[in-house]
Amino acid sequence: MTAPMTQQTQNDAALRRRAARVIPGGMYGHQSAGRLPPQYPQFFARAEGTRLWDVDGREYLDLMCSYGPVVLGHRHPRVEAAARAQAERGDCFNGPGPVMVELSELLVDTVRHADWSVLSKNGTDAMTMCLTIARATTGRRKVLRAGGAYHGAAPWCTPSTAGVLPEDRAHLVAYRYNDLDSVRAAVAGCEDDLAAIVVSPFRHDAGFDQEVADPAFARGVRALCDSTGAALILDDVRAGFRLHHGASWEPLGVEPDLSGWSKAIANGHPLAAALGNDRFRGGAEQVYVTGSFWFSAVAMAAGIATLRELDETGAVATMVARGQQLRHGLAAQAEAQGLSVRQTGPVQMPFLTFDGDVEFARANVFAGEAARRGVYLHPWHNWFVSAALSEHDVAQALLVTDDAFAAVRRAFGAG
Amino acid sequence: MTAPMTQQTQNDAALRRRAARVIPGGMYGHQSAGRLPPQYPQFFARAEGTRLWDVDGREYLDLMCSYGPVVLGHRHPRVEAAARAQAERGDCFNGPGPVMVELSELLVDTVRHADWSVLSKNGTDAMTMCLTIARATTGRRKVLRAGGAYHGAAPWCTPSTAGVLPEDRAHLVAYRYNDLDSVRAAVAGCEDDLAAIVVSPFRHDAGFDQEVADPAFARGVRALCDSTGAALILDDVRAGFRLHHGASWEPLGVEPDLSGWSKAIANGHPLAAALGNDRFRGGAEQVYVTGSFWFSAVAMAAGIATLRELDETGAVATMVARGQQLRHGLAAQAEAQGLSVRQTGPVQMPFLTFDGDVEFARANVFAGEAARRGVYLHPWHNWFVSAALSEHDVAQALLVTDDAFAAVRRAFGAG
Repeated sequence: MTAPMTQQTQNDAALRRRAARVIPGGMYGHQSAGRLPPQYPQFFARAEGTRLWDVDGREYLDLMCSYGPVVLGHRHPRVEAAARAQAERGDCFNGPGPVMVELSELLVDTVRHADWSVLSKNGTDAMTMCLTIARATTGRRKVLRAGGAYHGAAPWCTPSTAGVLPEDRAHLVAYRYNDLDSVRAAVAGCEDDLAAIVVSPFRHDAGFDQEVADPAFARGVRALCDSTGAALILDDVRAGFRLHHGASWEPLGVEPDLSGWSKAIANGHPLAAALGNDRFRGGAEQVYVTGSFWFSAVAMAAGIATLRELDETGAVATMVARGQQLRHGLAAQAEAQGLSVRQTGPVQMPFLTFDGDVEFARANVFAGEAARRGVYLHPWHNWFVSAALSEHDVAQALLVTDDAFAAVRRAFGAG
Repeated sequence: MTAPMTQQTQNDAALRRRAARVIPGGMYGHQSAGRLPPQYPQFFARAEGTRLWDVDGREYLDLMCSYGPVVLGHRHPRVEAAARAQAERGDCFNGPGPVMVELSELLVDTVRHADWSVLSKNGTDAMTMCLTIARATTGRRKVLRAGGAYHGAAPWCTPSTAGVLPEDRAHLVAYRYNDLDSVRAAVAGCEDDLAAIVVSPFRHDAGFDQEVADPAFARGVRALCDSTGAALILDDVRAGFRLHHGASWEPLGVEPDLSGWSKAIANGHPLAAALGNDRFRGGAEQVYVTGSFWFSAVAMAAGIATLRELDETGAVATMVARGQQLRHGLAAQAEAQGLSVRQTGPVQMPFLTFDGDVEFARANVFAGEAARRGVYLHPWHNWFVSAALSEHDVAQALLVTDDAFAAVRRAFGAG
């Protein structure tokens, strides 16, 4: 942990000025610092384990894990050794390497519902494939997904509708997460044209309190799929291998037909997967999906090493333990400061909101103060606990969050 | 070049059997060997420069370059050194590295029409962004593209319609490549709702004779975009930096408004880009596009090194020279064997068809024989000449193709 930082951010500022000329809006997408408090850097120079450094040399304890991918810590030795060994043989050939078969077998062996795997690059690729495969298999059109849920950034699902046509979202029907009646009503409205119901493993919409899945809701959507012949599609892109070493609803006893994966499956190397059961294999064979780098071997080698390390080290249990330590510490600190906060969602994907926090004013003070003091978390998006965090790391983070709560108390008072 | 190979392909066969269990159809997409002659391997073990080796140890001189990406040869020292140096600092952070700004500046400096860049992972990402940005900017819906042209594998453009809804392709209108009258008719049919005209730098549809762009056609579509306010979108995903060190229509004096890039821009590292001019910057700022690995630094470091190496070594001129050597050699060999062939498209993206070749029967014998003798080319998709090929490499390839032509002559006779 570095000492509280001065305003020496000239390298970041210079890069932002250059970026404003050649990148629309100066930056785009989920990693744009434009909507973050001013203490946040936009550009990073390096990372190692649980720490990253911005371009002005400021060090951060990482509680965002690159918005999910870095589940074992940055530059994990086993993962990087596997990637380097493959890179020394080559990456992008005229066909895949043996690692494609090995990784596909490992995914099928690890994820209970999966009989097959299609590998790609983006979570959006995987989720779009799941929809297309569901429609190809069922010959139906309607797809249910929770209103406001994030499932990618293609025209059918991206949060902004700029440049998106109504036709891009034809036959999509909304339900409310954890509200089985709303699903039932939506299913009824689709009559015999229901291709799929898309679910997130928990409600992890940015900017809203998170909601873990009600087991009755999970079983209910499975039963609706069974009775209608629709596909249950689990979007495990963000939470996959963080909630469970397998599909995230396995602990609930609920299996999807298709699932989308990305983020953590190769510890930061670009990889995604659509997994499915044998009922949907024929549909998967019919659709034409591909990409110039979908067969590249280095990310697959990294994926194999990541899945093995997660399994052999019991990484999910470690993340749960660190997440609980963090949640308990944050709760005690907030209470001591007389601040009313809510911590929602799974502990290993922490999310903290302040009661009555209009437009995240308190959250921005809290997160900005944490960033200034060397802990990188997020004011309105869930955080990510990595398996690399030690108890000591969490204790260090809590020293900073205590100061950050104090800053909120000074700015807004108790309550 | 290895000696003619025996049928020792047990490693490839074993991997194919394993793949059949866990990968739909045993393999998917453009790198599936399922539609290639039986002499082709599906799986590769390593690659270096102009050579690659399959999992049974057979060596190939590479005339496919991984279907485009490997423009400087496999494991190019400068590119791999840049990638390794970045990987030692980290890849996937909570924000991009300085390389994102450097690469965006380099793209904007290199590609004449470009004022800005949005980086992503797939050529499909880049092309979908171009469409969305054109629609966001113009507030219009209709998009023209040549019938049969490949622009990616998302529902709006993938060649298979399995699982695709008519709505996914709403407001797409077809024209015939190089037929300006067909474009004019399509434009007229769009009335005041034309958002964009999508063009390939040349007609490179797989399975058809290639067609270089008629300069009058290129100028004509530019004029139609100017008169209607629609965006001219150049799909430079496949041909970019192979025809010209800049956008592929710069030598014709025709600038697009938006262009899509991928394949060769990072010599096999996963990267894509949508480039645009200032008229479309506002639209690019409005759309929401992102991906978990779109900000990763290693591929960007590789992209910078690739673009510099291409520029400093005059790679396009080298590819043209090697392509001409190959084309002249193939023409002489075919004539000497009494075989009527057509070589179409730019010399650095070779394509050879046999007259009267029903269902590529002759092409399959030619390509299969070449593969068996250690030259990897393709029976019905354009090939790719890399800048790593020496005159001696091309001469070696021609020794093999002479035998392959002789095999066609033996199987089908002259003509």
